[in-house]
Amino acid sequence: MNRRTFNTKLSQGIAGTALLSGIPLACAMGGAQNKKKLGIALVGLGSYSTYQLAPGLQDAEHCYLAGIVTGTPEKEKVWMEKYGIPKENVYNYENFDSIAKNDSIDIVYVVLPNSMHADFSIRAARAGKHVICEKPMAMNVEECDAIIDACKKSGVKLSVGYRMQSDPYTNEIKRLVSEKPFGKVMYVSSDAGYISRGNPEQWRLDRSLSGGGALMNMGVYSVQSNIYGVGLNPISISAQEFSTRPEYFKDTDESITAQMEFPDGTVGHMFTSHNASANRLFVSFEKGWVELNPCHSYGPISGRTSEGNEIKYPHQSQQKVQMDDFAKHILMGTPNVAPGEMGKRDMIIVEAIYKSIAEGGKRMPLDLGDMGIVKKNI
Amino acid sequence: MNRRTFNTKLSQGIAGTALLSGIPLACAMGGAQNKKKLGIALVGLGSYSTYQLAPGLQDAEHCYLAGIVTGTPEKEKVWMEKYGIPKENVYNYENFDSIAKNDSIDIVYVVLPNSMHADFSIRAARAGKHVICEKPMAMNVEECDAIIDACKKSGVKLSVGYRMQSDPYTNEIKRLVSEKPFGKVMYVSSDAGYISRGNPEQWRLDRSLSGGGALMNMGVYSVQSNIYGVGLNPISISAQEFSTRPEYFKDTDESITAQMEFPDGTVGHMFTSHNASANRLFVSFEKGWVELNPCHSYGPISGRTSEGNEIKYPHQSQQKVQMDDFAKHILMGTPNVAPGEMGKRDMIIVEAIYKSIAEGGKRMPLDLGDMGIVKKNI
Repeated sequence: MNRRTFNTKLSQGIAGTALLSGIPLACAMGGAQNKKKLGIALVGLGSYSTYQLAPGLQDAEHCYLAGIVTGTPEKEKVWMEKYGIPKENVYNYENFDSIAKNDSIDIVYVVLPNSMHADFSIRAARAGKHVICEKPMAMNVEECDAIIDACKKSGVKLSVGYRMQSDPYTNEIKRLVSEKPFGKVMYVSSDAGYISRGNPEQWRLDRSLSGGGALMNMGVYSVQSNIYGVGLNPISISAQEFSTRPEYFKDTDESITAQMEFPDGTVGHMFTSHNASANRLFVSFEKGWVELNPCHSYGPISGRTSEGNEIKYPHQSQQKVQMDDFAKHILMGTPNVAPGEMGKRDMIIVEAIYKSIAEGGKRMPLDLGDMGIVKKNI
Repeated sequence: MNRRTFNTKLSQGIAGTALLSGIPLACAMGGAQNKKKLGIALVGLGSYSTYQLAPGLQDAEHCYLAGIVTGTPEKEKVWMEKYGIPKENVYNYENFDSIAKNDSIDIVYVVLPNSMHADFSIRAARAGKHVICEKPMAMNVEECDAIIDACKKSGVKLSVGYRMQSDPYTNEIKRLVSEKPFGKVMYVSSDAGYISRGNPEQWRLDRSLSGGGALMNMGVYSVQSNIYGVGLNPISISAQEFSTRPEYFKDTDESITAQMEFPDGTVGHMFTSHNASANRLFVSFEKGWVELNPCHSYGPISGRTSEGNEIKYPHQSQQKVQMDDFAKHILMGTPNVAPGEMGKRDMIIVEAIYKSIAEGGKRMPLDLGDMGIVKKNI
């Protein structure tokens, strides 16, 4: 056991005691959180891990790239060399469960195709690791429940890979919504889409691997930004599907529009597409508006208000901030800004959207309460 | 007959001959069009006539405020004095038909509540006057047909009060759509709404006078901008209604969302409301986007593109440009940028929206062909 591993175990022990005794974690730990970085293992080394997560982890303050899990042996050596990952922290999909015995891995980040999220998140939880499950959380609500249950049973933390929840632009929207400098929200409109022209065999276009098309991929961003753009969960939703390139989008949705009704009367519109570029959030208040465009991309995000003010923050890796937020949640007891219940809520909405489409655009009631709403952010 | 009246008759005579003989009107008339202004009579002296049309006419180049038609006797003197209108050009709703004998009135602009559009437009046509009918054109498609027929029978020109059709920002959108510097349009999104908090007894909130709420008032702008944002008519539409203040919006729609399907695969979203402020047009192309915000207000309009360019034109009265465009159409044979068929088309769409709402959001097919599309603008 090296010094870092020792510190990890130590701080986890303190954290556990603090939580049980009701003492605020940050107090119980004193300055300990500054000395500890949690080890993350990335499961699935596709482009998101390669170009976003691994680089983001290089700058992270509270976590680091400790291990990898890959089904492609030739990637092992490349990643080990590039990121100084020791051989004992490298796993494949078969021996993955033995990660339970590896104390240098604190968090498992599942970055696999959607159909594999539940399996690997549950196995990670059973291995005693905290879990980040990439969005969309799973193929359906049932799988979300299974992931949440597994994490609860194992006493590990669970987060969904909603990088936007940690983004300062998102949090400025939340602040405007909750502090009401422009009054109450009356209308929210959110678009998330891009034109897919790549390999038609990619897993995102294969329903058995993705669970759905634009809605599962980009649509959850629109669902999310509509919700934090109002600060409430919707009470009903209706939706429509549009298809113009069926030869390319063989069995996944190409474009979807949906309309949300919120309990305070706010009307929500969302659009998601694999056949049109759109990347916006517009929130109309009683006395003004705020717009982000781009809104859901890796940044830099750009925002403005009806008063002519620019919303601008220094650009940093959203993934770095997201993973640091989760590490801080584990280490210091700060809020989990993207808990499993949020991912499950969004999957309930996704299922309602597909059901509405199947029923010719019928308005589907939603009974979500406060599910997935995180009141106080970091 | 004074000199101006004589010139009017002369130019109308030449115009008639030119049209019959197929000679381009502007050639046949030589420089005559520069010397002639058409006389407009405003029917209904509410706020739109008072604060938009009459001031706009002061700067118009091809028409002028020649007469008024009002049901409020005390307004007669005020307007006569303010705008130098002779007594013989002042009418009330009862003696309005005698305007047929008044050679100084060339155009009648009907600015009455929607329920009176058809009646006065038809009476104006029968009186031999060219007609501008304020938007929405009428209460329903049947009335639109009656207006169009009456104008055809009387051989007079007909235009709908679509000020945006003459606006340079609209025409820049049309240029980007047709010249395709950003490629083909893939998605269009248009919002038009404001928060109504005024007198609940106003005619706009009385279905018997307005024919409908937000959709009839602001919604036609969204319909229009979705269409010129694509350059085609939609082939289907679905719609949803949202109601949160039924005590105020007793029998008119408060907020409506609608989704349009275009023959080239473009997806259209529109939102209109009397309970939320939104005033935008977003057009997403293959290789970029353009946005107007504000888009549908009296100006100044403001636009920008994905390349960071501002779209900016010197502000001028939209109503002045609109009425000048119609006068030029009459005088010089330039295109009628907002013909009656455009107003009828939009009313077909409005009726389909209400029908979709009544049928729970069902997608309604539309068979519009090129109806109302003006290919070449001034």
